[in-house]
Amino acid sequence: MKNLLIKNGTVVTASDTQNADVYIEGEKVVAIGNDLGSRFSKKADQIIDANGCYLFPGGIDAHTHMQLPFMGTFASDTFETGTLAGLHGGTTTIIDFAFQSHGDTLNSALNAWHEMAKDKTCSDYAFHVAVTDFTETAQKEIQGLVEKQGVSSFKTFMAYKGALMLDDRQIIQLMKEVKKFGGIVTTHAENGDLVDTLIAENRAKGNLGPEFHPLSRPPIVESEATGRIIDIAHQGGHPLYIVHLTCEDALNRVRAATLRNQKVYVETCVQYLLLDDSAYLEENFGGSKYVMSPPLRKKSDQEALWKGIDQNLIEVVATDHCPFCMDQKKMGIKDFSKIPNGAPGIEHRMELMFSEGVLKKRINLNKFVDLTSTAASKIFGLYPRKGSIAVGGDADIVIFDPKVKHTISAATHHMNCDYSAYEGWQVTGKCRTTILRGQVVIDQGKALIGKGYGKYIPRTKPGVANV
Amino acid sequence: MKNLLIKNGTVVTASDTQNADVYIEGEKVVAIGNDLGSRFSKKADQIIDANGCYLFPGGIDAHTHMQLPFMGTFASDTFETGTLAGLHGGTTTIIDFAFQSHGDTLNSALNAWHEMAKDKTCSDYAFHVAVTDFTETAQKEIQGLVEKQGVSSFKTFMAYKGALMLDDRQIIQLMKEVKKFGGIVTTHAENGDLVDTLIAENRAKGNLGPEFHPLSRPPIVESEATGRIIDIAHQGGHPLYIVHLTCEDALNRVRAATLRNQKVYVETCVQYLLLDDSAYLEENFGGSKYVMSPPLRKKSDQEALWKGIDQNLIEVVATDHCPFCMDQKKMGIKDFSKIPNGAPGIEHRMELMFSEGVLKKRINLNKFVDLTSTAASKIFGLYPRKGSIAVGGDADIVIFDPKVKHTISAATHHMNCDYSAYEGWQVTGKCRTTILRGQVVIDQGKALIGKGYGKYIPRTKPGVANV
Amino acid sequence: MKNLLIKNGTVVTASDTQNADVYIEGEKVVAIGNDLGSRFSKKADQIIDANGCYLFPGGIDAHTHMQLPFMGTFASDTFETGTLAGLHGGTTTIIDFAFQSHGDTLNSALNAWHEMAKDKTCSDYAFHVAVTDFTETAQKEIQGLVEKQGVSSFKTFMAYKGALMLDDRQIIQLMKEVKKFGGIVTTHAENGDLVDTLIAENRAKGNLGPEFHPLSRPPIVESEATGRIIDIAHQGGHPLYIVHLTCEDALNRVRAATLRNQKVYVETCVQYLLLDDSAYLEENFGGSKYVMSPPLRKKSDQEALWKGIDQNLIEVVATDHCPFCMDQKKMGIKDFSKIPNGAPGIEHRMELMFSEGVLKKRINLNKFVDLTSTAASKIFGLYPRKGSIAVGGDADIVIFDPKVKHTISAATHHMNCDYSAYEGWQVTGKCRTTILRGQVVIDQGKALIGKGYGKYIPRTKPGVANV
Amino acid sequence: MKNLLIKNGTVVTASDTQNADVYIEGEKVVAIGNDLGSRFSKKADQIIDANGCYLFPGGIDAHTHMQLPFMGTFASDTFETGTLAGLHGGTTTIIDFAFQSHGDTLNSALNAWHEMAKDKTCSDYAFHVAVTDFTETAQKEIQGLVEKQGVSSFKTFMAYKGALMLDDRQIIQLMKEVKKFGGIVTTHAENGDLVDTLIAENRAKGNLGPEFHPLSRPPIVESEATGRIIDIAHQGGHPLYIVHLTCEDALNRVRAATLRNQKVYVETCVQYLLLDDSAYLEENFGGSKYVMSPPLRKKSDQEALWKGIDQNLIEVVATDHCPFCMDQKKMGIKDFSKIPNGAPGIEHRMELMFSEGVLKKRINLNKFVDLTSTAASKIFGLYPRKGSIAVGGDADIVIFDPKVKHTISAATHHMNCDYSAYEGWQVTGKCRTTILRGQVVIDQGKALIGKGYGKYIPRTKPGVANV
Repeated sequence: MKNLLIKNGTVVTASDTQNADVYIEGEKVVAIGNDLGSRFSKKADQIIDANGCYLFPGGIDAHTHMQLPFMGTFASDTFETGTLAGLHGGTTTIIDFAFQSHGDTLNSALNAWHEMAKDKTCSDYAFHVAVTDFTETAQKEIQGLVEKQGVSSFKTFMAYKGALMLDDRQIIQLMKEVKKFGGIVTTHAENGDLVDTLIAENRAKGNLGPEFHPLSRPPIVESEATGRIIDIAHQGGHPLYIVHLTCEDALNRVRAATLRNQKVYVETCVQYLLLDDSAYLEENFGGSKYVMSPPLRKKSDQEALWKGIDQNLIEVVATDHCPFCMDQKKMGIKDFSKIPNGAPGIEHRMELMFSEGVLKKRINLNKFVDLTSTAASKIFGLYPRKGSIAVGGDADIVIFDPKVKHTISAATHHMNCDYSAYEGWQVTGKCRTTILRGQVVIDQGKALIGKGYGKYIPRTKPGVANV
Repeated sequence: MKNLLIKNGTVVTASDTQNADVYIEGEKVVAIGNDLGSRFSKKADQIIDANGCYLFPGGIDAHTHMQLPFMGTFASDTFETGTLAGLHGGTTTIIDFAFQSHGDTLNSALNAWHEMAKDKTCSDYAFHVAVTDFTETAQKEIQGLVEKQGVSSFKTFMAYKGALMLDDRQIIQLMKEVKKFGGIVTTHAENGDLVDTLIAENRAKGNLGPEFHPLSRPPIVESEATGRIIDIAHQGGHPLYIVHLTCEDALNRVRAATLRNQKVYVETCVQYLLLDDSAYLEENFGGSKYVMSPPLRKKSDQEALWKGIDQNLIEVVATDHCPFCMDQKKMGIKDFSKIPNGAPGIEHRMELMFSEGVLKKRINLNKFVDLTSTAASKIFGLYPRKGSIAVGGDADIVIFDPKVKHTISAATHHMNCDYSAYEGWQVTGKCRTTILRGQVVIDQGKALIGKGYGKYIPRTKPGVANV
Repeated sequence: MKNLLIKNGTVVTASDTQNADVYIEGEKVVAIGNDLGSRFSKKADQIIDANGCYLFPGGIDAHTHMQLPFMGTFASDTFETGTLAGLHGGTTTIIDFAFQSHGDTLNSALNAWHEMAKDKTCSDYAFHVAVTDFTETAQKEIQGLVEKQGVSSFKTFMAYKGALMLDDRQIIQLMKEVKKFGGIVTTHAENGDLVDTLIAENRAKGNLGPEFHPLSRPPIVESEATGRIIDIAHQGGHPLYIVHLTCEDALNRVRAATLRNQKVYVETCVQYLLLDDSAYLEENFGGSKYVMSPPLRKKSDQEALWKGIDQNLIEVVATDHCPFCMDQKKMGIKDFSKIPNGAPGIEHRMELMFSEGVLKKRINLNKFVDLTSTAASKIFGLYPRKGSIAVGGDADIVIFDPKVKHTISAATHHMNCDYSAYEGWQVTGKCRTTILRGQVVIDQGKALIGKGYGKYIPRTKPGVANV
Repeated sequence: MKNLLIKNGTVVTASDTQNADVYIEGEKVVAIGNDLGSRFSKKADQIIDANGCYLFPGGIDAHTHMQLPFMGTFASDTFETGTLAGLHGGTTTIIDFAFQSHGDTLNSALNAWHEMAKDKTCSDYAFHVAVTDFTETAQKEIQGLVEKQGVSSFKTFMAYKGALMLDDRQIIQLMKEVKKFGGIVTTHAENGDLVDTLIAENRAKGNLGPEFHPLSRPPIVESEATGRIIDIAHQGGHPLYIVHLTCEDALNRVRAATLRNQKVYVETCVQYLLLDDSAYLEENFGGSKYVMSPPLRKKSDQEALWKGIDQNLIEVVATDHCPFCMDQKKMGIKDFSKIPNGAPGIEHRMELMFSEGVLKKRINLNKFVDLTSTAASKIFGLYPRKGSIAVGGDADIVIFDPKVKHTISAATHHMNCDYSAYEGWQVTGKCRTTILRGQVVIDQGKALIGKGYGKYIPRTKPGVANV
C-alpha cells in the first residue's frame, strides 16, 4: 500500500475551503491537515506539491451514455475513450444508463452494460437502469437491482413513443415499486406526443434543417411533462429526480411545486447553462452538433437556470454526454429528426463550470463542488465513498490550477468526437492532476493508467448520509 | 499553546460525515484524520475520547436579544447568563442586535451593546445593528460599520410603528447604502399598521387575554410584509434576509419570488418548527409564555417550514432568544398587548433540532449542521473562522452524545427565565462537551470558564467563501 | 301565426333586469316594453299574466347524455323523457353528445344520434360530437360537421383508456383541425392512467364499495389532466373548454393559466356546486347514486367553484345528466368500478341554481341567466337564436315564480330515474310555465306538447355575437 | 312629455345584440321591438332613423377629474367643457372625485364639488369621495354619504405621501367603515415611498426630462401596492376596486389572488390599452403630454390588459381624464416631477375602444358595452337607471355609425386641452347622435343642449341588480 501526500493545496468540499495537506493511504483519504509532512511520524511514498491549486473531489457525472445504441448508430465514445476523457477533465466517476430492450429483462440490460464496461472503463462507474417496458417481470427485478446489484435509480422517458417512452401508468407502477425499496425514479420530461406532432408538422412543411429541431421541442413540451411527472410523484408521495432540465418554464414547474410543500431533485447539464439556441443556425449543417433533447434554449433560460442553482433548487450539473461524429450526424442531413441526438461534454464539464461559474461569480467554490460531485453522490448513493474529500472516503481528487488558461478544441480533446460544442472557447482553470482511489491517473495531460482501471461502484440507497 | 486531540468521534460538517480524530493546536483545528494519536510525531496535551459521539461545529445563533430593553423592561438573560446557557446547549457564537435609539447614531448603539457585552459574555459574539431611524447621519455610518466595526448586517422592522418601524422609504435607502459596501439587510416582516389595527380591534372588543395575541397577528400580517420587502429588494436588486419566518403563507411569498429568479435568504426559529398556537390556550396566563412576534402558528405551518428546509429555501434556524420571567409577562395580565414579546430558547436549539429533526428523519446530520451553524456563518461573514470543523478554523466543537435522553425543564436549564417553552419535553441527544477556540468550556454540564471568556468576532462581508 | 303577450313580469337577461311585457309573434320575440297590451294596435291571441314572476331565457343544458350506451347499459332517460323533464325544469335546449365508435366515422355517430333524437325529443336540441378515434377519415369530416351539420364543438376524453380516451397526439391533431374551421374542442380532464392505477390499487386491496370511487379519482387526477390540456391548448394557440370542472385544484390550473395571458372556458355542473363526497357514505349502496366522473368533492371545493363563478372564470353550469336506475347501479354492487357513472340532474338545475345560488346571494339574477343559458348559447354557437330574451330571438322563456316552495323527490320528478340526488331538498322558486319557440310547453307542471316537438338546432361557430 | 322613436338600429347591451327599434317616453325607455312605429297605437313626436347604426347605452366614465386642483394648477377642463366633450364622444355620465382637503370634512369636499358642477355640467354626473385624511370625523360621515348623499364609493391613494396618501392603517379603518354600509373602497395603487425614492434618485442624477417619469414609477411600484391592498382587503373580507391598473405585473397580482378565492374589481384606462412608453421620447418636451400616474407601459403590458379583459378579470375601461394644457405641463420643463400628472381622454374613449377593440376583434360588441358602460353602472350603483338600454331605464343612447372614418386631433376635439394624446389617429366608427334622458344632446357634432343640462345622479349601493 502506497502513501501519498498532497501538500500546500486548498481543499474544497461542498461546505468548506481549507488550506490543508491531504494524506492518502492506498485508496483512501486518511488525514487532512496543516503541514502534515512534518508532523507525521511516517513519511509518504509520494509527495505532490499543489501550491496555488485547489483540491476538488473527483467529479461525478451522473448522466452519461457511453457507446449507447441509439437512432440506428452508437454513441462514439466507448467506456474506455469516454471515461479517459472524463479523467482528463477531472471526472472520476460516471453513472451511465443500462437500457432495457423491449421484451427483455432489466437484469439482461444491466448485464449487457456490465459487459461493455468491464475491463474497459478508465474511471469508476455505476449504472442507472433505464426502464422502457415495465412488465411484471421487470417489476419483480427492482428489489434485487436495488439490494443486490447496486442500482438504486431508474430512468423513465416521457418521450420517444414506441421506443423508450413509458405511459403514465407504467411510470406510476415503477415509482411505487422503486419506492418500496428506497430507490428513486428519474425522468426525461418531454411530452412525446407533442414532440411527435411538432416533428411531423415541421417535416410536412419541408422544415428539415437542424434549426427545426428546437422548434419541434419548444419549452412547453418539456414544462408540460415536467409538471405532469411532478403531479404524479406528488399524488403517490414519491421522490423524483428530473434529468437535464433546460428552461425557465420547466424550472418554474418545480418552483410552483414548492408552494404545495413538494420537494423535487433537479439536474441540469452544463450545455444548458452555457449554450443557446442560436447555435442551431451554424452554417453547413453545423447546427447538427447541438441536436440533443431537450434542445438548447434562450439566454434568458440560462439565466433562470443559474438562478435556480443560486436558489438551491437545481442540485446537480451533469452532461448527458452522448457524442456522435459528424458522419453520424449526417444521417439526418435531409431530415433533422434523423440526426442522432446527443453531444460530447464529459471532458470539459468541470473546467467550464469553474471558468464560467466560479470565476464569473455565479457560484462559489463550495457550490461548484456540490454541483459537480457531492450532490450527485448523495442523491444516487455513492456517498460517503465518493463525492467529497473526507477522511475514510476514496481518494478521488482533482488538483486544479485556477490560473491556467487554455482553449477547448476537438483538435486537442480526448473524447472520440470530431467536433466540440465549445470549439475555441477560452477557459481559465485546468485539471492539472487527477487522482482516482489514491492513484495519479492523469498528470499534466498524460494518462498514467490504462483501460480497465475503473471499478464498478455499487450504489446504496439515496440519502444515506443520515443517522 | 496547548494541543488537544479529540479521538474516535464522528466529525460532521454541512457536507460530510467522517469517522475521524480532530487535532487542535491552541484555538485552531490543525488536522482531521484517522488515528491521529498514533500517527503524529508530537503528542497532545489533552486527549478526549469521543467514542459514540458526533463532533458538530459549535452552534451559531444568528438571532438573540440579551438584556434587550423592550416594552418597558429588559430581557432577563444578560450577556453572561444567556451565552453561558448557550454554551451548555452547544451554541458557541451568538449574533445579537444593537438597537439604535431615535435621535441617536448607529455607532452609539453599537458602543452601548459592546459595553454590555464586554467582559461579560461567555460565548463568542457579534452584532447586527438594528436601524430604527435612518437619518443622514446613520447613512454615513454604514461604511464604517461594515468596513471597520465588523458589522455587515442591518436589521429593519416593518412593525412596531412609532418605535422600531421604518417606513418603506427608509428601508429602501438603507438597502441601497448597505449594498454599496457589500452588507445585507435583514427584516422583521409584519405589517405594523395591520397589527396595530387588529390589536385595537381586539382591545375594543374586550379581547385581552394572551390568546388574542396570535389573532392580532395572523399569517397575512406577516405574509403581506414579507411579500412587500421581497418586492422592494427585487426592485433594487438588493440581497435580503428574512428573520424568523413562521408560516406557510409567508414562506409561499419566498417560493413565489423564485419564479421571477429572485433569491431570498430565510431564517426560521426552532419554536416555529416545534410549537403551535394551541399553546396560547394554556391556563392561568400560561399562554403569555409564548407571546412573541410573530406568534406561533398552526401545525400545518410547521410542516410547511420543515418542507421549506427540505427544499433548501430556509437556510438558518435561530431562536430569537428574548426571555422574560413570568413577573415581567404579568405586565400584560390585563392586556395581551402589554405582555413583553419574547421567550427563552438559546439553550435547547441544537438538542431540539437533533431530537426532533434528525432523529425524526426530517433532516440529516449535514443539514442539521448547516441549519444550526454553517449557513449563518457564511451568510453573516463569520466563515471560515466559525461555522465548521475545518483545518484553520476556530476549534469550536460540540461533542454530542446522540443516545442520552433527558428532559427539558426550567428547574434545570441555565437560562435566566423561570419557565421553559418546552417544559417536560423529552429529548434524545445531549451536548456532552462544548469546546470554544480549543478550550473545553462545558463538560458534562459543568462550566469550565467564567464570564468574559467570549470574544467579539468582527464579521466580514457575507458570502466570503468565494474565490 | 299566433301572438302571445306575457305581461307584468320581470324580464331578466344576462345583463339586465326590467319590469316589462314581452310580445311574441309565432316563434320569435317581437317586443319588450312597458304596458305593451294597451299600446299595441294589434292584440295578442293569448295573454299570460306573469305578475310576481321572473321571465328567464329558456335554460340551455350544454352537457347531457340521453340514452347513452355506457358501461354495458344505457342512460335511463331517452331523448323523450329526458328533455320533457328538462322542460319541466325550464331547460328548453340541450346539447347532447354523439359518440363515435372505434372504427366508425364521426358522421355515422351523428347520424345515429339524430336517429335517436328525431321525432322523440321534446325540447330543442343540438349535438357535440365526442371523438374517440381520431383517424384520417375523422379528420376529413371536421369541416363538413362544422360548416354543414351544425356541429362546432368536439369532445375529447383524457380518461377511459381503451374506450373513449384519446392520447395527447390525437387531441392535438383534433384541436388543429377544429381550429381551422372555427370550432372548439371540449375536454373531460382526468388522467386515465392515474385513474386506472388507483382503481386497480383499490380493487387489489378489496376496496370495492362506492366510497372508493372518489378515492380512485382524487383531485390531482383531474388537475393534472386539466393542467396538461391547458398546456397543450396554449402551445397551439387553441381555444379550450373544460367540461365539468369540479374542484379547487383543477380550477387553480385555470387561474394559473391566466398569469400567462391564456383564456380557458370552464363549465361546472350543479352537483359539484351543491353536493359533496360525504354522499358516498350513504348506506345500503346509496353512495352509488353519486358515482359519476369526476366524483363529488369537498365542501371547500364547492366554495372555490362559487368563487370561480364570482371571478367570472367559470362561465357555464350544466348537469352532465346521465341517469341510471338503481338496478343499473347494482351492476357494480360488488365492484365500484362497474357502477355505471352518471346521475340525473337536468330537471332541477335551474331551480337549484336559483334557490341555492340567487337566494343565498352567491350570484345575482343576471349571472344566473348567464350561467344557465346565455354563456353556453354564445360559446356553442346557438346565439342569438337561443340564450336570451331579445327581439328577434326564439321565444324560449321560463316564467319563474320565485316564491313557490317545493320539495325535490324521485316520487314527483319527471326524469326516468328511480332516485334523485337531491331527494328531500326544499327549494324556493319554481318554473311555473315554460315557453319554447312561442308555444307554452309546460304550464303548472302539465306538459302541453308531446314528443317530437323539439327541433334540431344547427349551431354556428362559437362567439358569433361579434361584429 | 315628448316621445321619441329610434328605428332600424341594432340595439346592443352587455349581453345582447338585437335589430330593434327603441321607443322612448320622456326620459325613459319604454319599449324595444321590431317595427315599433307601425305597431304602436300612439305615434312618436320625433323619429330618428338609425339604419346601419348601433345603439349603445350612453357611456359611463367612472374616473374623471374635471377642474381638479392638482400640483399647483387646475385640470383644464371644467365640468362644463369636459362633460360636453364627453357627450360628443358618447359618454353621458361621469363619476368624478370630490377630494377631501387635510383638516377638512368629507362633506365639505362633496359640497365644494357639487358647487363646481351644479348648473355647469352638460352630462349627468355622480361623485366618488377621495379620502385623504381619515379622521374620526370622516369616519362618522361615511354612513350619511352612502345613505343620504348618493356616494357609495371612496377612493384612497397609496402614493403622493404627505398630500393624498393614506397609510395602511387608515385604509383599513376606512374599508371597515365603508363595508358596514355596503359601499366599496377604490384604490390608486402605487407605493408612494418607492415613487418618492426613485424620483429623488433620478433628480439626484440630473435625470430631469419627462422620459424619467416612467422610470420613477416602474411596474413593481404599482404591483407591490396592488398586491398589498389586495392582501389588506383579503384580511378583512372587504370588496376592492383597483383604479387604472396598467401593467401585466399588477394584473398578475389580481390573477394570483384568484387562487385563494378572492374577487377583485379592476379598472384600466383606454390609454393603457393603446399607448406605450415610447411616447415619453417625443421631442420638444412632447413626452410631457403623457405624464400621468401610473405611467404608460410596454406593448406587452397592453397585450396583458387586453387578455385580462378577455379573461373577464378587468371589468371597466375609464379614462382618468385630467387634462393640462402645454403651458401647464411646462411647469415641469426643468423637472419631470413638477409636470402636472394627467391627460385628456374622455372624448374618444368609446370611439377608440370600438375602433381598436371591436374592429380589431379584441372584444365583441357586448363586451364593448359592458366595459364602457354597464359594468361601471352596476359596480358603482347607477344601475338600473344608467348603463344599459332597457325598459324603465334612462334613455341614454349613443347612435353609433360603425363605418365613419375620422381623425383625432386637438384641432377638432372639444376638450379644453391644446393637445391630444392620440393626435392624428385614424379611427373607424363615430358617435353620430347622443341622447341623454330622451333628449338629443349631440347630433352630427353639434351640441343641442347647454351647460347645466346634466343632473346629479345619487348612487345606490354596488351590486344592486340582485334579488
